[in-house]
Amino acid sequence: MPTQKKAGTSGFLYQQLAHELEEKISCGQYRVGERLPSLRNLHNRTGLSITTIAQAYVELEARGLVEPREKSGYFVRPLVKDVLPMPQIGEHPASRPRKVRVNSLAESILSTIRDPKMRPFGAALPADQLLPVRQLARSARTVLGKYFTGGGLHYDSAQGVPALKRQIAARSIGFCGGIDAEDMVVTNGCMDAIQLCLRAVTQPGDIVVTESPTFICYLQLIEQLGLFALEIPTSPSTGIDLESLEEALFTWVWRRNRVAACLLNPSFHNPLGFDMPIDRRKDLVLMLAAYGVPLIEDDVFGELSFGASRPVPLKSFDTQGLVLYCSSFSKTLAPDFRVGWVLPGRFREQILRLKFNSSIAQAKLPQLILADFLENGHYDRHLRKLRMAIKNQMASTAQAIARYFPEGTKLTAPAGGCMLWVELAPQVDGVELFHQAKDEKINIFPGTISSSTGRFNNCIRISCGAPWSEEMEDGMRRLGALINRLQSQSA
Amino acid sequence: MPTQKKAGTSGFLYQQLAHELEEKISCGQYRVGERLPSLRNLHNRTGLSITTIAQAYVELEARGLVEPREKSGYFVRPLVKDVLPMPQIGEHPASRPRKVRVNSLAESILSTIRDPKMRPFGAALPADQLLPVRQLARSARTVLGKYFTGGGLHYDSAQGVPALKRQIAARSIGFCGGIDAEDMVVTNGCMDAIQLCLRAVTQPGDIVVTESPTFICYLQLIEQLGLFALEIPTSPSTGIDLESLEEALFTWVWRRNRVAACLLNPSFHNPLGFDMPIDRRKDLVLMLAAYGVPLIEDDVFGELSFGASRPVPLKSFDTQGLVLYCSSFSKTLAPDFRVGWVLPGRFREQILRLKFNSSIAQAKLPQLILADFLENGHYDRHLRKLRMAIKNQMASTAQAIARYFPEGTKLTAPAGGCMLWVELAPQVDGVELFHQAKDEKINIFPGTISSSTGRFNNCIRISCGAPWSEEMEDGMRRLGALINRLQSQSA
Repeated sequence: MPTQKKAGTSGFLYQQLAHELEEKISCGQYRVGERLPSLRNLHNRTGLSITTIAQAYVELEARGLVEPREKSGYFVRPLVKDVLPMPQIGEHPASRPRKVRVNSLAESILSTIRDPKMRPFGAALPADQLLPVRQLARSARTVLGKYFTGGGLHYDSAQGVPALKRQIAARSIGFCGGIDAEDMVVTNGCMDAIQLCLRAVTQPGDIVVTESPTFICYLQLIEQLGLFALEIPTSPSTGIDLESLEEALFTWVWRRNRVAACLLNPSFHNPLGFDMPIDRRKDLVLMLAAYGVPLIEDDVFGELSFGASRPVPLKSFDTQGLVLYCSSFSKTLAPDFRVGWVLPGRFREQILRLKFNSSIAQAKLPQLILADFLENGHYDRHLRKLRMAIKNQMASTAQAIARYFPEGTKLTAPAGGCMLWVELAPQVDGVELFHQAKDEKINIFPGTISSSTGRFNNCIRISCGAPWSEEMEDGMRRLGALINRLQSQSA
Repeated sequence: MPTQKKAGTSGFLYQQLAHELEEKISCGQYRVGERLPSLRNLHNRTGLSITTIAQAYVELEARGLVEPREKSGYFVRPLVKDVLPMPQIGEHPASRPRKVRVNSLAESILSTIRDPKMRPFGAALPADQLLPVRQLARSARTVLGKYFTGGGLHYDSAQGVPALKRQIAARSIGFCGGIDAEDMVVTNGCMDAIQLCLRAVTQPGDIVVTESPTFICYLQLIEQLGLFALEIPTSPSTGIDLESLEEALFTWVWRRNRVAACLLNPSFHNPLGFDMPIDRRKDLVLMLAAYGVPLIEDDVFGELSFGASRPVPLKSFDTQGLVLYCSSFSKTLAPDFRVGWVLPGRFREQILRLKFNSSIAQAKLPQLILADFLENGHYDRHLRKLRMAIKNQMASTAQAIARYFPEGTKLTAPAGGCMLWVELAPQVDGVELFHQAKDEKINIFPGTISSSTGRFNNCIRISCGAPWSEEMEDGMRRLGALINRLQSQSA
């Protein structure tokens, strides 16, 4: 296909045109559902070749902004944020620390996510097809020889492979004062990082502040470590309610069972998907520092931004070493590798001690493969493709929800990550829906496991990790039918 | 070299001859230090060719049974058990549960074991040269293609790869009622298995019975989990003292801070090296079952037997599901792979829950490589070579200790594993010796970190994982000189 370049400006002509059209869409000049100018119309108006204009439309389609309809041209695609009204996580749950007991239900739910016969709306991670299999395989072949002949089989330190840590540090621009690769500790995935952090800063009986709703695995960890969860309401658009948080800190920080940590997921939150605004991030870090409470930041979805840039981590505002930053490659590259990391701030010694005693060392082989992959500069290109793919999948899912779910359904509008949170009519029992959907081989998460308060039973979490298809569409159609039935039965 | 085979019997002639000579050595017909018949003498007596007889001696030398001395023929080599008298772990430590605080010293010690400039008498595992690098690399190349194209990058379950578990189960003959691969949970090395077991069966404040001396990392785990250690004396020849154990159980099992688990390493114990006799194993399992106390068995050195067969695990006598059996491939194949496993008995559900919440899944890639390696039948051949190598290294180390350490030194005589425990004169400070040795680039473990009681300060642990060499000999010579100096200074 011929590609022309205009002298004196950057990018190919078709890219410049695509950019112009995108700006017109985002400023509302072309509205959702509206037909865009035909190829011929644009050719007459701009003098650009039909090929160039067609390329621009293909580019916009790939970015999820427009969709072709047979024989009638290109139309502006609904963005997630325009599909349905947002749920309101309004009233406070009783702001009291509580013992957590979610395990048995959660386990029966989590056990379904690996069933390949299920429509995969459960697990919050990209499908296999979206992972850079070939490049990772190439990196694996590259490092294998050196690994096996260079004493690779021997225990490494508990801290992780320096070459990988340097690559991660180099990517972490914008963090407060930069990141020292030396400080970083590589972990067995992000959950390992989080559990090490919790164990480093808490004692059994302590209180951990988290959000309501939050990630089920946080609650399970809190239960297992003999801690109390204090759930603070969080908004699907701006994150944890800072007033409620300060009130809770004031009430609980000096008690015998003290608030020992705050465990948050501010960037494309699981399950609400919000990206906490930057000024609130700063306020949050300052507030916790004022109370001397360590903040465990889970940034595992941070790279899955649909926008031009990724969120600035809370860690960027940490001047006290009180933020323990956790992330991994599980949502973007290789879930099986189990490679995560923690920037432990002032708790490095405790983290290393716990890590050493629970697993002696961190396996080098997957770290070496990832280091090679990153050194070869594959990651950014892969991330661009991945973000676009998930953005499109999420838009398709949101539109299907709007089509098939009952009137009155509310839906989040994440700017990244890979899941949607759906609020159904109050009488719909999400756990019953989970079971009925499971029988129809459709995997979702009921909202109630996202809290220890018993709330959110009329909500569900829907993952958008898998490519859209007729099967996925069919799954949403049948899920919608189930919801309609449940809603009318209990009305 | 010609090799003849006698019709009607198995093995080459030289192997048969080696076998006959070995039997004469082990029944005492040829004694330690005695000269074996010359080649000519045996040729005249047996009619075998000089070449065959020479091959038999080479074979015996490789097995560590004889050693050639220049121009004077072959001599029976001292076995470890004949080198020096055994230490006596006599008096009881005060049999009270205690808070453990060993971390800071232990850490500075453990941090030295990865220094390649050190004479490696510290880390208790085989040197790189003894690992089956080429076969593992071949298995890696074999599985890589399938792994990357077959959805391998995705999370696996927390339970482990079935093909590997079947291989491990098939090897675990002699376990009570056989092993069901389904029950097995693959872990991030053996320490991960042990920490999961401890967390599954204890609550903070509980008492864990262990041995005195014991493995430093057990004590660190007990400390980190807020548990109390109750150390029971253990003998370098027969293991934990069952009378003291029963007394302790009787005293502590019904208290508020109850005995919640017993954590033992009965097969080539770390640090004493004993192989607990089979009748005592049975008594131990029955006793703990009678008190309803879960028994965590660390069998990580079990395959490193110098004898014809490996020890029978405690798990073999478990009819109640109260034995949690832990092991790994770290001491025999690939420390870096971090692949261990647990047979959790009746605690499977708790173990899986803890495993899921601390790491979601277990990495598949190293498991697939190991499964391929085992399926190809490489393991037994490798183990035979490895056992013989370590046996020889241990004999050389023991002889060097006898040569260079002061009179009165006592030494264990392990029948497997890879470490020696040395008892020095009471006035020798093991920690001071550790530091002085470290300055001379010799890595050992001071005995005091093997207990929370402050005992064993005149003891050291010496690992025999590395091939013997002039450098190793020199290390022992200089270590002996340091000990002599310390002993005379404080006499």
